[in-house]
Amino acid sequence: MANERNFWLIIAYDGTGFSGWQRQPAARTVCGALEELLSDLCRMPVELTAASRTDAGVHARGQSANFTCSTGIPPEGLLRAANDALAQSRLERVGEIGIVSAVEMPLAFHARYDAKGKRYRYRIRNAEKPDIFLRNQCYQIADPLDCEAMQQAASHLPGEKDFRCFLSAGGNPQKSTVRRIDSCTVARQGDEVYIDIEGNGFLYHMVRNIAGTLAEIGLGRRDPDDMISIIESKDRQSAGHTAPPQGLYLEEVFY
Amino acid sequence: MANERNFWLIIAYDGTGFSGWQRQPAARTVCGALEELLSDLCRMPVELTAASRTDAGVHARGQSANFTCSTGIPPEGLLRAANDALAQSRLERVGEIGIVSAVEMPLAFHARYDAKGKRYRYRIRNAEKPDIFLRNQCYQIADPLDCEAMQQAASHLPGEKDFRCFLSAGGNPQKSTVRRIDSCTVARQGDEVYIDIEGNGFLYHMVRNIAGTLAEIGLGRRDPDDMISIIESKDRQSAGHTAPPQGLYLEEVFY
Repeated sequence: MANERNFWLIIAYDGTGFSGWQRQPAARTVCGALEELLSDLCRMPVELTAASRTDAGVHARGQSANFTCSTGIPPEGLLRAANDALAQSRLERVGEIGIVSAVEMPLAFHARYDAKGKRYRYRIRNAEKPDIFLRNQCYQIADPLDCEAMQQAASHLPGEKDFRCFLSAGGNPQKSTVRRIDSCTVARQGDEVYIDIEGNGFLYHMVRNIAGTLAEIGLGRRDPDDMISIIESKDRQSAGHTAPPQGLYLEEVFY
Repeated sequence: MANERNFWLIIAYDGTGFSGWQRQPAARTVCGALEELLSDLCRMPVELTAASRTDAGVHARGQSANFTCSTGIPPEGLLRAANDALAQSRLERVGEIGIVSAVEMPLAFHARYDAKGKRYRYRIRNAEKPDIFLRNQCYQIADPLDCEAMQQAASHLPGEKDFRCFLSAGGNPQKSTVRRIDSCTVARQGDEVYIDIEGNGFLYHMVRNIAGTLAEIGLGRRDPDDMISIIESKDRQSAGHTAPPQGLYLEEVFY
Protein backbone atom coordinates (compact mmCIF):
# COMPACT_ATOMS: atom_id res chain seq x y z
CA MET A 1 0.00 0.00 0.00
CA ALA A 2 1.30 3.47 -0.88
CA ASN A 3 2.37 5.81 1.93
CA GLU A 4 1.70 3.23 4.62
CA ARG A 5 3.25 4.45 7.89
CA ASN A 6 3.93 2.74 11.18
CA PHE A 7 2.94 4.53 14.41
CA TRP A 8 4.36 3.45 17.75
CA LEU A 9 2.46 4.45 20.89
CA ILE A 10 3.31 4.25 24.58
CA ILE A 11 0.04 4.07 26.47
CA ALA A 12 -0.98 4.47 30.13
CA TYR A 13 -4.32 3.26 31.43
CA ASP A 14 -6.30 2.65 34.56
CA GLY A 15 -7.55 -0.89 33.90
CA THR A 16 -10.38 -0.72 36.45
CA GLY A 17 -13.20 -0.08 34.01
CA PHE A 18 -11.95 -2.36 31.23
CA SER A 19 -12.19 -6.08 30.44
CA GLY A 20 -8.44 -6.06 29.77
CA TRP A 21 -6.46 -4.95 26.74
CA GLN A 22 -7.55 -7.39 24.06
CA ARG A 23 -10.47 -6.49 21.79
CA GLN A 24 -13.62 -8.54 22.46
CA PRO A 25 -16.96 -8.38 20.69
CA ALA A 26 -19.26 -7.38 23.57
CA ALA A 27 -16.90 -5.99 26.19
CA ARG A 28 -15.27 -2.63 26.87
CA THR A 29 -11.55 -3.12 26.33
CA VAL A 30 -8.59 -0.73 26.15
CA CYS A 31 -7.66 -1.90 22.66
CA GLY A 32 -11.26 -1.61 21.46
CA ALA A 33 -11.65 1.92 22.85
CA LEU A 34 -8.34 3.08 21.35
CA GLU A 35 -8.94 1.50 17.95
CA GLU A 36 -12.31 3.22 17.74
CA LEU A 37 -10.77 6.56 18.63
CA LEU A 38 -7.75 6.21 16.30
CA SER A 39 -9.95 5.04 13.43
CA ASP A 40 -12.04 8.19 13.92
CA LEU A 41 -8.97 10.43 13.94
CA CYS A 42 -7.32 8.72 10.94
CA ARG A 43 -10.63 8.36 9.07
CA MET A 44 -9.90 4.72 8.30
CA PRO A 45 -10.02 1.46 10.24
CA VAL A 46 -6.96 0.97 12.42
CA GLU A 47 -5.75 -2.20 14.18
CA LEU A 48 -3.46 -2.04 17.19
CA THR A 49 -0.82 -4.62 18.10
CA ALA A 50 0.33 -4.49 21.73
CA ALA A 51 3.37 -5.94 23.47
CA SER A 52 1.23 -7.35 26.27
CA ARG A 53 -2.41 -8.41 26.56
CA THR A 54 -3.09 -7.20 30.07
CA ASP A 55 -5.98 -8.81 31.99
CA ALA A 56 -9.16 -7.18 33.24
CA GLY A 57 -8.37 -4.72 36.04
CA VAL A 58 -4.61 -4.65 35.31
CA HIS A 59 -3.04 -1.22 34.76
CA ALA A 60 -0.30 0.12 32.51
CA ARG A 61 2.03 3.08 32.64
CA GLY A 62 4.02 1.91 29.65
CA GLN A 63 2.01 -0.38 27.37
CA SER A 64 3.58 -0.40 23.92
CA ALA A 65 1.55 -0.79 20.73
CA ASN A 66 1.81 -0.01 17.04
CA PHE A 67 -0.47 0.34 14.03
CA THR A 68 0.05 0.96 10.35
CA CYS A 69 -2.02 3.49 8.49
CA SER A 70 -1.75 5.81 5.50
CA THR A 71 -3.00 8.89 7.38
CA GLY A 72 -1.12 12.12 6.77
CA ILE A 73 -1.45 13.23 10.41
CA PRO A 74 1.99 13.58 12.05
CA PRO A 75 2.56 11.51 15.22
CA GLU A 76 2.62 14.58 17.49
CA GLY A 77 -0.72 15.70 16.01
CA LEU A 78 -2.18 12.27 16.64
CA LEU A 79 -0.87 12.32 20.22
CA ARG A 80 -2.50 15.67 20.95
CA ALA A 81 -5.80 14.88 19.26
CA ALA A 82 -6.06 11.46 20.93
CA ASN A 83 -5.31 12.83 24.40
CA ASP A 84 -7.78 15.68 23.94
CA ALA A 85 -10.50 13.21 23.03
CA LEU A 86 -9.54 10.79 25.82
CA ALA A 87 -9.55 13.49 28.48
CA GLN A 88 -13.20 14.36 27.86
CA SER A 89 -12.02 17.77 29.05
CA ARG A 90 -14.35 19.43 31.43
CA LEU A 91 -12.24 21.54 33.76
CA GLU A 92 -9.06 19.59 33.05
CA ARG A 93 -10.70 16.25 33.70
CA VAL A 94 -8.28 13.44 32.92
CA GLY A 95 -9.17 10.28 30.99
CA GLU A 96 -8.83 6.61 31.92
CA ILE A 97 -6.37 6.20 29.05
CA GLY A 98 -3.52 8.53 28.13
CA ILE A 99 -1.07 8.36 25.23
CA VAL A 100 2.38 9.00 26.68
CA SER A 101 4.22 9.23 23.36
CA ALA A 102 3.69 8.66 19.64
CA VAL A 103 6.49 8.30 17.09
CA GLU A 104 6.84 7.02 13.54
CA MET A 105 8.85 3.81 13.12
CA PRO A 106 10.14 1.79 10.15
CA LEU A 107 7.35 -0.36 8.65
CA ALA A 108 9.05 -3.53 9.94
CA PHE A 109 8.66 -2.55 13.62
CA HIS A 110 6.30 -4.84 15.55
CA ALA A 111 5.44 -3.94 19.17
CA ARG A 112 5.08 -7.58 20.27
CA TYR A 113 7.62 -9.55 18.19
CA ASP A 114 10.37 -6.96 18.64
CA ALA A 115 9.97 -6.65 22.41
CA LYS A 116 13.13 -7.79 24.22
CA GLY A 117 11.74 -7.56 27.71
CA LYS A 118 9.18 -6.10 30.08
CA ARG A 119 9.09 -4.59 33.51
CA TYR A 120 6.10 -4.95 35.84
CA ARG A 121 5.36 -3.56 39.27
CA TYR A 122 3.07 -5.32 41.71
CA ARG A 123 1.74 -2.91 44.33
CA ILE A 124 0.58 -4.05 47.76
CA ARG A 125 -0.92 -1.78 50.39
CA ASN A 126 0.22 -3.24 53.68
CA ALA A 127 -1.64 -1.44 56.46
CA GLU A 128 -4.32 -2.49 58.91
CA LYS A 129 -6.88 -0.01 57.61
CA PRO A 130 -7.68 -0.21 53.90
CA ASP A 131 -7.69 3.03 51.89
CA ILE A 132 -10.92 3.19 49.89
CA PHE A 133 -9.28 5.56 47.40
CA LEU A 134 -6.68 2.92 46.51
CA ARG A 135 -9.10 -0.02 46.32
CA ASN A 136 -8.67 -0.45 42.55
CA GLN A 137 -4.96 0.32 42.58
CA CYS A 138 -3.34 -2.13 44.95
CA TYR A 139 -3.72 -5.42 46.80
CA GLN A 140 -4.81 -4.65 50.37
CA ILE A 141 -3.08 -6.88 52.96
CA ALA A 142 -3.74 -6.01 56.60
CA ASP A 143 -1.23 -8.30 58.37
CA PRO A 144 2.39 -7.07 58.34
CA LEU A 145 4.58 -8.37 55.53
CA ASP A 146 8.21 -9.31 56.18
CA CYS A 147 9.89 -7.66 53.20
CA GLU A 148 13.29 -9.16 53.98
CA ALA A 149 11.83 -12.66 53.73
CA MET A 150 10.11 -11.67 50.47
CA GLN A 151 13.36 -10.26 49.07
CA GLN A 152 15.20 -13.43 50.10
CA ALA A 153 12.60 -15.52 48.23
CA ALA A 154 12.70 -13.16 45.23
CA SER A 155 16.47 -13.62 44.94
CA HIS A 156 15.82 -17.19 43.76
CA LEU A 157 13.87 -16.02 40.73
CA PRO A 158 16.43 -14.45 38.34
CA GLY A 159 17.85 -16.63 35.59
CA GLU A 160 16.56 -18.59 32.62
CA LYS A 161 14.29 -21.23 34.15
CA ASP A 162 11.19 -23.27 33.55
CA PHE A 163 8.54 -21.21 35.35
CA ARG A 164 5.66 -23.65 34.73
CA CYS A 165 4.79 -23.45 38.46
CA PHE A 166 3.63 -19.85 37.91
CA LEU A 167 1.54 -20.56 34.78
CA SER A 168 -2.22 -20.38 35.37
CA ALA A 169 -4.62 -22.47 33.36
CA GLY A 170 -6.62 -20.58 30.75
CA GLY A 171 -3.99 -18.65 28.80
CA ASN A 172 -2.89 -19.14 25.20
CA PRO A 173 -0.99 -22.40 24.64
CA GLN A 174 2.79 -21.93 25.02
CA LYS A 175 5.50 -23.84 23.16
CA SER A 176 7.83 -23.45 26.12
CA THR A 177 7.42 -22.39 29.74
CA VAL A 178 11.08 -21.35 29.99
CA ARG A 179 11.53 -17.61 30.58
CA ARG A 180 14.38 -15.40 31.73
CA ILE A 181 13.84 -13.20 34.79
CA ASP A 182 16.47 -10.46 34.96
CA SER A 183 15.61 -9.02 38.34
CA CYS A 184 13.00 -9.15 41.07
CA THR A 185 13.14 -6.76 44.03
CA VAL A 186 10.84 -6.16 46.99
CA ALA A 187 10.82 -2.77 48.72
CA ARG A 188 8.64 -1.05 51.28
CA GLN A 189 7.69 2.63 50.93
CA GLY A 190 5.55 3.69 53.87
CA ASP A 191 2.31 1.70 53.77
CA GLU A 192 3.11 0.15 50.40
CA VAL A 193 5.21 -2.80 49.31
CA TYR A 194 6.42 -2.89 45.72
CA ILE A 195 7.49 -5.99 43.83
CA ASP A 196 9.45 -4.93 40.73
CA ILE A 197 10.16 -7.64 38.20
CA GLU A 198 11.88 -7.57 34.85
CA GLY A 199 12.35 -10.33 32.32
CA ASN A 200 12.29 -11.32 28.68
CA GLY A 201 8.70 -12.56 28.81
CA PHE A 202 6.02 -13.70 31.21
CA LEU A 203 3.59 -16.62 31.21
CA TYR A 204 -0.16 -16.22 31.74
CA HIS A 205 -0.68 -14.77 35.29
CA MET A 206 3.02 -15.31 36.04
CA VAL A 207 3.61 -11.98 37.80
CA ARG A 208 0.40 -12.27 39.83
CA ASN A 209 1.26 -15.84 40.82
CA ILE A 210 4.75 -14.75 41.88
CA ALA A 211 3.22 -11.85 43.84
CA GLY A 212 0.77 -14.18 45.59
CA THR A 213 3.59 -16.59 46.48
CA LEU A 214 5.78 -13.75 47.77
CA ALA A 215 2.86 -12.40 49.83
CA GLU A 216 2.41 -15.80 51.52
CA ILE A 217 6.13 -15.84 52.30
CA GLY A 218 5.90 -12.26 53.64
CA LEU A 219 3.07 -13.36 55.94
CA GLY A 220 5.25 -16.19 57.30
CA ARG A 221 3.06 -18.95 55.87
CA ARG A 222 5.97 -20.26 53.81
CA ASP A 223 9.71 -20.22 54.12
CA PRO A 224 11.70 -17.87 51.82
CA ASP A 225 13.79 -20.76 50.52
CA ASP A 226 10.64 -22.72 49.60
CA MET A 227 10.87 -20.67 46.41
CA ILE A 228 13.61 -23.04 45.17
CA SER A 229 11.48 -26.20 45.48
CA ILE A 230 8.38 -24.41 44.16
CA ILE A 231 10.23 -23.56 40.92
CA GLU A 232 11.74 -27.05 40.70
CA SER A 233 8.32 -28.71 41.15
CA LYS A 234 7.04 -27.19 37.86
CA ASP A 235 3.62 -27.61 39.50
CA ARG A 236 1.15 -24.72 39.75
CA GLN A 237 -0.35 -26.35 42.88
CA SER A 238 2.89 -25.90 44.81
CA ALA A 239 3.04 -22.12 44.30
CA GLY A 240 0.90 -19.51 46.04
CA HIS A 241 -2.42 -17.91 45.11
CA THR A 242 -2.98 -15.57 42.18
CA ALA A 243 -2.72 -12.03 43.55
CA PRO A 244 -5.63 -9.84 42.36
CA PRO A 245 -5.34 -7.83 39.12
CA GLN A 246 -5.66 -4.33 40.59
CA GLY A 247 -2.11 -4.45 42.04
CA LEU A 248 -0.42 -5.10 38.69
CA TYR A 249 1.15 -2.40 36.49
CA LEU A 250 2.89 -2.92 33.14
CA GLU A 251 5.61 -0.31 33.57
CA GLU A 252 7.82 -0.59 30.51
CA VAL A 253 8.51 -2.65 27.42
CA PHE A 254 12.11 -2.90 26.23
CA TYR A 255 13.34 -3.13 22.61
CA MET B 1 -40.81 3.58 71.00
CA ALA B 2 -39.28 1.11 73.41
CA ASN B 3 -35.56 0.43 73.27
CA GLU B 4 -34.97 2.99 70.55
CA ARG B 5 -31.22 3.58 70.19
CA ASN B 6 -29.19 6.24 68.42
CA PHE B 7 -26.21 5.11 66.31
CA TRP B 8 -23.55 7.60 65.24
CA LEU B 9 -21.39 6.68 62.25
CA ILE B 10 -18.24 8.25 60.80
CA ILE B 11 -18.15 7.32 57.11
CA ALA B 12 -15.52 7.48 54.36
CA TYR B 13 -16.42 7.22 50.70
CA ASP B 14 -15.07 7.62 47.22
CA GLY B 15 -17.78 9.79 45.67
CA THR B 16 -16.84 8.98 42.05
CA GLY B 17 -19.57 6.44 41.41
CA PHE B 18 -22.33 8.20 43.33
CA SER B 19 -24.81 10.98 42.60
CA GLY B 20 -23.84 12.58 45.90
CA TRP B 21 -24.86 11.80 49.47
CA GLN B 22 -28.56 12.61 49.48
CA ARG B 23 -31.07 9.83 48.72
CA GLN B 24 -32.78 10.23 45.32
CA PRO B 25 -35.43 8.01 43.77
CA ALA B 26 -33.64 6.86 40.62
CA ALA B 27 -29.96 7.53 41.34
CA ARG B 28 -27.19 5.67 43.13
CA THR B 29 -26.34 7.73 46.21
CA VAL B 30 -24.15 7.10 49.26
CA CYS B 31 -27.07 7.60 51.64
CA GLY B 32 -29.30 5.31 49.59
CA ALA B 33 -26.69 2.54 49.45
CA LEU B 34 -25.98 2.77 53.20
CA GLU B 35 -29.63 2.88 54.23
CA GLU B 36 -30.31 -0.22 52.17
CA LEU B 37 -27.39 -2.05 53.77
CA LEU B 38 -28.19 -0.92 57.35
CA SER B 39 -31.87 -1.77 56.95
CA ASP B 40 -30.81 -5.28 55.88
CA LEU B 41 -28.49 -5.67 58.86
CA CYS B 42 -30.99 -4.24 61.39
CA ARG B 43 -33.96 -6.04 59.78
CA MET B 44 -36.03 -2.86 59.80
CA PRO B 45 -36.11 0.32 57.72
CA VAL B 46 -33.43 2.80 58.74
CA GLU B 47 -33.08 6.51 57.83
CA LEU B 48 -29.74 8.28 57.97
CA THR B 49 -29.21 11.95 58.83
CA ALA B 50 -25.85 13.34 57.73
CA ALA B 51 -23.97 16.49 58.72
CA SER B 52 -23.32 17.39 55.09
CA ARG B 53 -25.06 16.59 51.80
CA THR B 54 -22.01 16.19 49.61
CA ASP B 55 -22.43 16.67 45.84
CA ALA B 56 -21.94 14.11 43.09
CA GLY B 57 -18.27 13.18 42.78
CA VAL B 58 -17.30 14.72 46.14
CA HIS B 59 -15.45 12.46 48.60
CA ALA B 60 -15.46 12.06 52.38
CA ARG B 61 -13.02 10.75 54.93
CA GLY B 62 -15.12 11.89 57.85
CA GLN B 63 -18.79 12.24 56.95
CA SER B 64 -20.89 12.08 60.12
CA ALA B 65 -24.38 10.59 60.22
CA ASN B 66 -26.78 9.08 62.72
CA PHE B 67 -29.88 6.88 62.73
CA THR B 68 -32.24 5.65 65.39
CA CYS B 69 -33.32 2.03 65.48
CA SER B 70 -34.42 -0.58 68.03
CA THR B 71 -31.99 -3.26 66.81
CA GLY B 72 -30.15 -5.21 69.49
CA ILE B 73 -26.91 -5.33 67.50
CA PRO B 74 -24.10 -3.53 69.36
CA PRO B 75 -22.38 -0.67 67.45
CA GLU B 76 -19.12 -2.61 67.04
CA GLY B 77 -21.06 -5.56 65.55
CA LEU B 78 -22.79 -3.22 63.14
CA LEU B 79 -19.44 -1.68 62.16
CA ARG B 80 -17.92 -5.07 61.38
CA ALA B 81 -20.95 -6.43 59.53
CA ALA B 82 -21.38 -3.26 57.46
CA ASN B 83 -17.70 -3.11 56.47
CA ASP B 84 -17.69 -6.81 55.57
CA ALA B 85 -20.67 -6.28 53.29
CA LEU B 86 -19.26 -3.07 51.81
CA ALA B 87 -15.88 -4.63 51.04
CA GLN B 88 -17.40 -7.25 48.72
CA SER B 89 -14.39 -9.26 49.89
CA ARG B 90 -12.65 -11.13 47.19
CA LEU B 91 -8.97 -11.23 48.05
CA GLU B 92 -9.24 -8.27 50.43
CA ARG B 93 -10.96 -6.09 47.90
CA VAL B 94 -11.94 -2.79 49.49
CA GLY B 95 -15.33 -1.09 49.05
CA GLU B 96 -16.23 2.39 47.81
CA ILE B 97 -17.68 3.17 51.23
CA GLY B 98 -16.14 2.34 54.60
CA ILE B 99 -17.52 2.86 58.10
CA VAL B 100 -14.70 4.38 60.15
CA SER B 101 -16.45 4.20 63.53
CA ALA B 102 -19.85 3.43 65.06
CA VAL B 103 -20.89 4.38 68.59
CA GLU B 104 -24.15 4.68 70.50
CA MET B 105 -25.19 8.21 71.48
CA PRO B 106 -27.98 9.73 73.59
CA LEU B 107 -31.28 9.78 71.70
CA ALA B 108 -31.12 13.60 71.43
CA PHE B 109 -27.93 13.58 69.33
CA HIS B 110 -28.46 14.87 65.77
CA ALA B 111 -25.56 14.67 63.30
CA ARG B 112 -26.57 17.84 61.43
CA TYR B 113 -28.12 20.16 64.03
CA ASP B 114 -25.45 19.43 66.64
CA ALA B 115 -22.50 19.98 64.28
CA LYS B 116 -20.38 22.93 65.45
CA GLY B 117 -18.09 23.00 62.42
CA LYS B 118 -16.56 21.18 59.45
CA ARG B 119 -13.20 20.80 57.86
CA TYR B 120 -12.75 20.26 54.11
CA ARG B 121 -9.70 19.66 51.97
CA TYR B 122 -9.56 20.68 48.33
CA ARG B 123 -6.89 18.73 46.46
CA ILE B 124 -5.24 20.04 43.30
CA ARG B 125 -2.69 18.13 41.27
CA ASN B 126 -0.36 20.79 39.90
CA ALA B 127 1.93 19.12 37.36
CA GLU B 128 2.27 19.37 33.62
CA LYS B 129 1.42 15.71 33.01
CA PRO B 130 -1.89 14.50 34.43
CA ASP B 131 -1.90 11.26 36.45
CA ILE B 132 -4.68 9.04 35.10
CA PHE B 133 -4.84 7.18 38.41
CA LEU B 134 -5.75 10.40 40.24
CA ARG B 135 -8.28 11.65 37.68
CA ASN B 136 -11.26 11.20 40.02
CA GLN B 137 -9.39 12.34 43.11
CA CYS B 138 -8.07 15.80 42.37
CA TYR B 139 -8.35 18.86 40.14
CA GLN B 140 -5.61 18.65 37.47
CA ILE B 141 -3.99 22.03 36.75
CA ALA B 142 -0.99 21.96 34.42
CA ASP B 143 0.30 25.56 34.77
CA PRO B 144 2.31 26.27 37.93
CA LEU B 145 0.37 27.66 40.89
CA ASP B 146 1.87 30.35 43.09
CA CYS B 147 1.03 28.99 46.54
CA GLU B 148 2.27 32.08 48.35
CA ALA B 149 -0.19 34.23 46.41
CA MET B 150 -2.94 31.71 47.17
CA GLN B 151 -2.07 31.73 50.88
CA GLN B 152 -2.05 35.53 50.89
CA ALA B 153 -5.55 35.54 49.35
CA ALA B 154 -6.72 32.79 51.74
CA SER B 155 -5.65 34.92 54.72
CA HIS B 156 -8.55 37.28 53.93
CA LEU B 157 -11.15 34.56 54.43
CA PRO B 158 -11.23 33.84 58.20
CA GLY B 159 -13.85 35.62 60.27
CA GLU B 160 -17.62 35.84 60.42
CA LYS B 161 -18.60 37.35 57.09
CA ASP B 162 -21.29 37.42 54.46
CA PHE B 163 -19.95 34.89 51.92
CA ARG B 164 -22.74 35.36 49.40
CA CYS B 165 -20.09 35.79 46.65
CA PHE B 166 -19.26 32.07 47.02
CA LEU B 167 -22.87 30.80 46.96
CA SER B 168 -23.82 29.01 43.74
CA ALA B 169 -27.37 29.07 42.46
CA GLY B 170 -29.31 25.83 42.86
CA GLY B 171 -28.85 24.96 46.54
CA ASN B 172 -31.46 24.95 49.28
CA PRO B 173 -32.70 28.44 50.21
CA GLN B 174 -30.66 29.97 53.08
CA LYS B 175 -31.96 32.39 55.72
CA SER B 176 -28.52 33.95 55.97
CA THR B 177 -25.33 33.84 53.90
CA VAL B 178 -23.17 34.79 56.89
CA ARG B 179 -20.75 32.05 57.93
CA ARG B 180 -17.66 31.89 60.09
CA ILE B 181 -14.42 30.61 58.53
CA ASP B 182 -11.93 29.63 61.23
CA SER B 183 -8.94 28.92 59.02
CA CYS B 184 -7.92 28.48 55.41
CA THR B 185 -4.41 27.36 54.50
CA VAL B 186 -2.74 26.54 51.19
CA ALA B 187 0.23 24.16 51.12
CA ARG B 188 2.19 22.36 48.42
CA GLN B 189 3.31 18.73 48.86
CA GLY B 190 5.25 17.59 45.82
CA ASP B 191 2.91 17.68 42.82
CA GLU B 192 -0.13 18.45 44.93
CA VAL B 193 -1.55 21.64 46.39
CA TYR B 194 -3.94 21.33 49.34
CA ILE B 195 -6.46 23.93 50.41
CA ASP B 196 -7.59 23.16 53.97
CA ILE B 197 -10.58 25.10 55.23
CA GLU B 198 -12.46 24.97 58.50
CA GLY B 199 -15.58 26.83 59.53
CA ASN B 200 -18.94 26.67 61.28
CA GLY B 201 -20.85 26.02 58.08
CA PHE B 202 -20.58 26.32 54.32
CA LEU B 203 -22.97 27.58 51.64
CA TYR B 204 -23.85 25.57 48.51
CA HIS B 205 -20.60 25.05 46.50
CA MET B 206 -18.79 27.49 48.82
CA VAL B 207 -15.58 25.45 49.18
CA ARG B 208 -15.42 24.69 45.44
CA ASN B 209 -16.01 28.36 44.59
CA ILE B 210 -13.28 29.41 47.02
CA ALA B 211 -10.96 26.76 45.49
CA GLY B 212 -11.70 28.00 41.95
CA THR B 213 -11.03 31.61 43.02
CA LEU B 214 -7.77 30.65 44.76
CA ALA B 215 -6.70 28.65 41.67
CA GLU B 216 -7.19 31.73 39.46
CA ILE B 217 -5.11 33.76 41.91
CA GLY B 218 -2.44 31.03 41.92
CA LEU B 219 -2.32 31.19 38.13
CA GLY B 220 -1.74 34.96 38.30
CA ARG B 221 -5.05 35.84 36.67
CA ARG B 222 -6.14 37.77 39.73
CA ASP B 223 -4.35 39.62 42.50
CA PRO B 224 -4.24 38.00 46.00
CA ASP B 225 -5.80 41.09 47.58
CA ASP B 226 -8.69 40.97 45.11
CA MET B 227 -10.13 38.51 47.64
CA ILE B 228 -11.14 41.47 49.83
CA SER B 229 -13.26 43.17 47.15
CA ILE B 230 -14.67 39.83 45.97
CA ILE B 231 -16.05 39.14 49.47
CA GLU B 232 -17.29 42.72 49.82
CA SER B 233 -19.09 42.57 46.46
CA LYS B 234 -21.46 39.83 47.73
CA ASP B 235 -21.75 38.96 44.03
CA ARG B 236 -21.16 35.43 42.73
CA GLN B 237 -20.08 36.90 39.37
CA SER B 238 -17.08 38.62 40.92
CA ALA B 239 -15.60 35.39 42.33
CA GLY B 240 -13.84 32.64 40.37
CA HIS B 241 -15.13 29.45 38.74
CA THR B 242 -16.52 26.46 40.59
CA ALA B 243 -13.65 23.98 40.97
CA PRO B 244 -14.70 20.45 39.97
CA PRO B 245 -16.15 18.05 42.57
CA GLN B 246 -13.44 15.35 42.42
CA GLY B 247 -10.96 17.56 44.33
CA LEU B 248 -13.20 18.01 47.38
CA TYR B 249 -13.00 15.94 50.58
CA LEU B 250 -15.17 16.30 53.69
CA GLU B 251 -12.48 15.55 56.29
CA GLU B 252 -14.13 16.03 59.66
CA VAL B 253 -17.25 17.26 61.38
CA PHE B 254 -16.86 18.90 64.80
CA TYR B 255 -19.32 18.71 67.72
